[in-house]
This record gives sequence, C-alpha cells and structure tokens, in this order.
Amino acid sequence: MTSDLTQAILDADRRALARAITLVESTRSDHREQAAALLADLSGHGREALRIGLSGTPGVGKSTFIENFGLMLCEQGLRVAVLAVDPSSARTGGSILGDKTRMEHLTRHPNAYIRPSPSQSHLGGVARRTREAVALCEASGFDVVLIETVGVGQSETVVAELSDVFLLLLAPGGGDELQGVKRGIMEAADLIVVNKADGDLKHAAIRTCADYAGALRLLRRRPQDPPGFPKAVTVSALQNDGLAQVWAEIGALSSWRRDQGHWTGRRAAQARHWFAEEVREALLAQLKTADARAQMAALAGDVVSGKTSASLAARAMLSWLEKTGRTDATAE
Amino acid sequence: MTSDLTQAILDADRRALARAITLVESTRSDHREQAAALLADLSGHGREALRIGLSGTPGVGKSTFIENFGLMLCEQGLRVAVLAVDPSSARTGGSILGDKTRMEHLTRHPNAYIRPSPSQSHLGGVARRTREAVALCEASGFDVVLIETVGVGQSETVVAELSDVFLLLLAPGGGDELQGVKRGIMEAADLIVVNKADGDLKHAAIRTCADYAGALRLLRRRPQDPPGFPKAVTVSALQNDGLAQVWAEIGALSSWRRDQGHWTGRRAAQARHWFAEEVREALLAQLKTADARAQMAALAGDVVSGKTSASLAARAMLSWLEKTGRTDATAE
Repeated sequence: MTSDLTQAILDADRRALARAITLVESTRSDHREQAAALLADLSGHGREALRIGLSGTPGVGKSTFIENFGLMLCEQGLRVAVLAVDPSSARTGGSILGDKTRMEHLTRHPNAYIRPSPSQSHLGGVARRTREAVALCEASGFDVVLIETVGVGQSETVVAELSDVFLLLLAPGGGDELQGVKRGIMEAADLIVVNKADGDLKHAAIRTCADYAGALRLLRRRPQDPPGFPKAVTVSALQNDGLAQVWAEIGALSSWRRDQGHWTGRRAAQARHWFAEEVREALLAQLKTADARAQMAALAGDVVSGKTSASLAARAMLSWLEKTGRTDATAE
Repeated sequence: MTSDLTQAILDADRRALARAITLVESTRSDHREQAAALLADLSGHGREALRIGLSGTPGVGKSTFIENFGLMLCEQGLRVAVLAVDPSSARTGGSILGDKTRMEHLTRHPNAYIRPSPSQSHLGGVARRTREAVALCEASGFDVVLIETVGVGQSETVVAELSDVFLLLLAPGGGDELQGVKRGIMEAADLIVVNKADGDLKHAAIRTCADYAGALRLLRRRPQDPPGFPKAVTVSALQNDGLAQVWAEIGALSSWRRDQGHWTGRRAAQARHWFAEEVREALLAQLKTADARAQMAALAGDVVSGKTSASLAARAMLSWLEKTGRTDATAE
C-alpha cells in the first residue's frame, strides 16, 4: 500500500499528497510506522523545492501577501505549496490557514496546494509534521514550498531551520516597533518585507523599511550572505506592488548561495539538526509508555519520601529502560 | 571517604559543606559518582530549610536586600545559606555572587554561608548543581536557604521550582515597567517586593507597589495561596525598612501552606519534577559519549546524502544505543 502511495506522490497526485500528509500528522503508532516507511521510500528522489519561510504577526497582511505572491508564481507556471506552523492552534482551537475565506484565489489555482495547520499542542510534533510535509511536497514535485508562521514562541526558529530563504513580514510602524522584533528573528531573516506600502501608510512603510535596513547593517555579516543581504524592501501585497522584486531578490540570493556552496551546506546542516532532534525525541518517547510512566511514578514516590535521591532514582529508571529494551529484543 | 563527608555535613562543618558543593558542581565522572553517593547517603535525614527564591534584574538592589535581610535573620539566631543561579556567568565571565565586596557584613557573619555561582554554560547543569547544593545546605542544618537569580532566560523558572516561597524584587518605575515583567514570573511570585522606597523614590515605590498589587489581583487565584496572596509590599533594603514585614509575610504564608498541606504538596511536586528532569538529562547524556557522537555523525551523513530518512536513522541510532547498553551490561 505504501509503495502505491509512494508512486502516486511522485506522480504529483494531489489526493495522494493530502493522504500522506494526514499520515505524517497522525500520532497513531501504525500511522507513524507507515509514515516512516513512506518517507524512507521517498528519500533520495532528488527533487528539491525552494523552501521559503515566512513569519509575521497577525495583522501584517500575511494572507494577502501569500495569496498574491503565490498567484504570481503560479501564473509563471510554478507549482506552489503552502504549509503552516502554528503551535498556538491547539490553544485557540483555530488554525492560521484554516479559514477557507483566506487566499480564495490561490486555493482555487491548479498549481497551488494549501494545507491548513492541524491542531497540535506540542511544538516538537508540529516541527516534525511540518518537516515531513515539506519533504512530501518536494517529492510531489512542487517548485516552491511556502512555510508560514505567526511567530509564537519557538515557531519562528522551527521555520527558519526548515527554509532555504527566510522572510520576515512587517507592517509600517513607529521606530518603537523595531524593538518588538526579537533579535534572534532579525538575525535569521534573509529579507525583511515591509507590507502596506500604499495609500496613507506608504510614507510610514518607507520610513520603517529604512529603520530596519539600518538595524540590519548593525548585525554581523553572515557567511551565507551575498553583499547587500540581508535586505529590507517595501511592498503592497494588496496592490500587487513590489512582489516581483521580492521574487527577484529571492532568486538572486538563491543563485549566489548555490554558486558558493552555501545552499547545500545549509540543507546539510538542517538535515543534521533535524536528525539530532528526532533522536532526542525518540529517546524521550521511551518515557511515555504506560509501563514507563508507572515505573517513573513508583521511583518518584521513593524520591518524595526521601528513600532515595533524584540521581539514584534516575539511574534506576535508566537501568529499567535498558532491561525492558533487552527483554523486548529477546522476545522478538 | 564519602561517609566521613556525610557525617561532617550533618555536623554542620562548613568546610565539609564547601567541599561537598564543589563535588556536586564538578562535571568529572568520578566526582559525579561521589556526589551521587553522598546525596543518597544524606537523603532521608529529615532536615528541612525554608527555601526562599529571589529574582530581580540587576540594579534593583538584590545584594543590599540579601545582605540586610540575611543579617536580620542571622541576628535572630537563624542559620542562612545564600546560593545563586546564574546561567549568564559563563558568558560574562563574571558571577553574580562572585564579587567579594558584595554583602560584606553577611559574608562575615558566623550564621551565614554564601556560595558564589560557578561558571557554567548549561542551565540544566546549573539547575542540578543548585538543587543538589540546596539539599546539602538542608542536610547541614541551615534554617533558611536563599536562592538568588538575575532572571536570565529560564533561570527564574528554575528558582521558582526550587523554592518554597518565591520573591520578585523590583525597583520603582513608571507604569510601563509593569509590562517588562514576564507574565510567567508574575504568576510564580508569592510576594512582590518593591525596593528603594526611600528618599526621592519613596512615592514612586508606593505607586509601583499599587500598580503591581492591582496586576496581581487580575491573576487567577492559586490553590496554594491564603487570602490576600500573592501580595506586593514596599521596602527600603538600604534603610532596613520593611524587611521585618517581608519576613512576617513569608512566615504567615508558610504557616498557612503547612497547615493546609500545600507545603508538602509543593515539595513533592518539585521532587517529582526534578526527578523527571534528571531522567531526561540522563537519557540525553547517552548521546554525548565519543562513540555515540561518532555514530550520530555517520548516520547524519546518510540522512544528508538522502540514503535514509531522519526517522529511520533515528531508529537506527536508538537500536545502536540499546545494543551498546546491552554489551556493557554483559561485560560487567
């Protein structure tokens, strides 16, 4: 069954892609098994999309930007997938791409595939499902994968670690607003895009853009940047103004990075990062079985009562895990 | 040797305590072994100090507060230990309690023991060594253990999870400053102490205190709080004004919590929390041996080249760890 799905994904079958993403989103262990087999089947297919990360707080016009930027690319014949990393969706019950009225033209374009963020509480889980969804979109032959986040907590870092090029979308504002952007996210941005450069806000947008351009110059130059990058530009997503320039900047940046070997270097570093993350998660997952929880509770009781120290109890727990693993192995 | 040290600590020998804290601070594996044995020896001695957590940014007068508050307690015949959680010390090269000119009277008092923060980069390590140092101070018969932090990153959470009563020290300031205090730390505070209520700042301190009292009323009531808590008070640490009231508030809070069973409940919850933390750290420590690093690097290479997926490589790593553990066990 998995190999049929593998072939359908490689054949750019959209329903197969949707089914596969549902599989990687599932926490059921048989689904996890199938997802792992599918991803292993698909690894090494050699297809690579341009992964564009996009972060911006609510109200900066992210949907309008994605709608019109995505449509522009689709009109050029490119296939565009849009994914969302939204760790807050579990809390709010909502989903940043769940609103069907958002991006209604892009949603209907045959070259576009939009996947709403599932409700999940655990950022580790969100990161993995997004990473795997990106891999599925690449295997399915998409040229561009846009990964959107509202930038809650660590989600910006997750998106930055998933993307080839990372955009930070901002709205025009006073100089004060500059301090509202976390330093880490400024440092991760390749391109700062000040939106709403139209009508009454046009001058404020130009001023904000200049402020951020100044701030970017104060950051240490990164080896993966051509001269002039990271850069700040203004756009009006609503009036479709400046979006072609954003695409040109992304192209210039990508070409330079490919030529200089930074492209593959970044991909390799990201693959290593996510592999290490998987190992850590898998190790800690050993503590989540019913038996392990019961053992933890019993040992915690001994720590609370002073019968043993936290250190010794932790060692006892590790021995228990090791022994259990061995028994499982023997039972096979 | 450990049992001599155990006895010396129980006998309140200060040099033995200092040696034991050095042991728990060490990352050398033979020292870790000795520290674990020592802590196991000492667990169940039944001595309990009042653990007071204290957080405040630089400049709020933390040293002056600790000096005069600590002296007041020492003069009452109480034995007072002061520890610091300072995850930034590795970066700055400094140490928040390292400056010998700080708290010079308290340092010399026979009832006081002040331990500067060691230079360590890893907060997990800082948390563990502080937790173990607290346990040593309790075993050594201290009545009060003050745990100080400058509140960088997660350190406030660490201190809150280590203390029976958590104080947040603030300086007088405009209403704007209220927003500078993270919500999480407000929620963890039992008592907000607005310092510098003297001279020109007295009125500002009273106003700030009222602002925070108002903010505290907006927080959800916690089951572990008697009516009126969490509370905000003003003090002048410099003029020794209000410190007795702080002590009285801590006493009232502690008595209530003891009577209602929240005291032991909180201690038990903390013990469970730290035990779970130890288990997680111990699990992840398996990845830090030279052999494990080499294995990780080899598997990461396969992920980068597309030979396998991150998920499958992670499973291979877990099998490797299990096999290695089994070999070790067989060799014993």
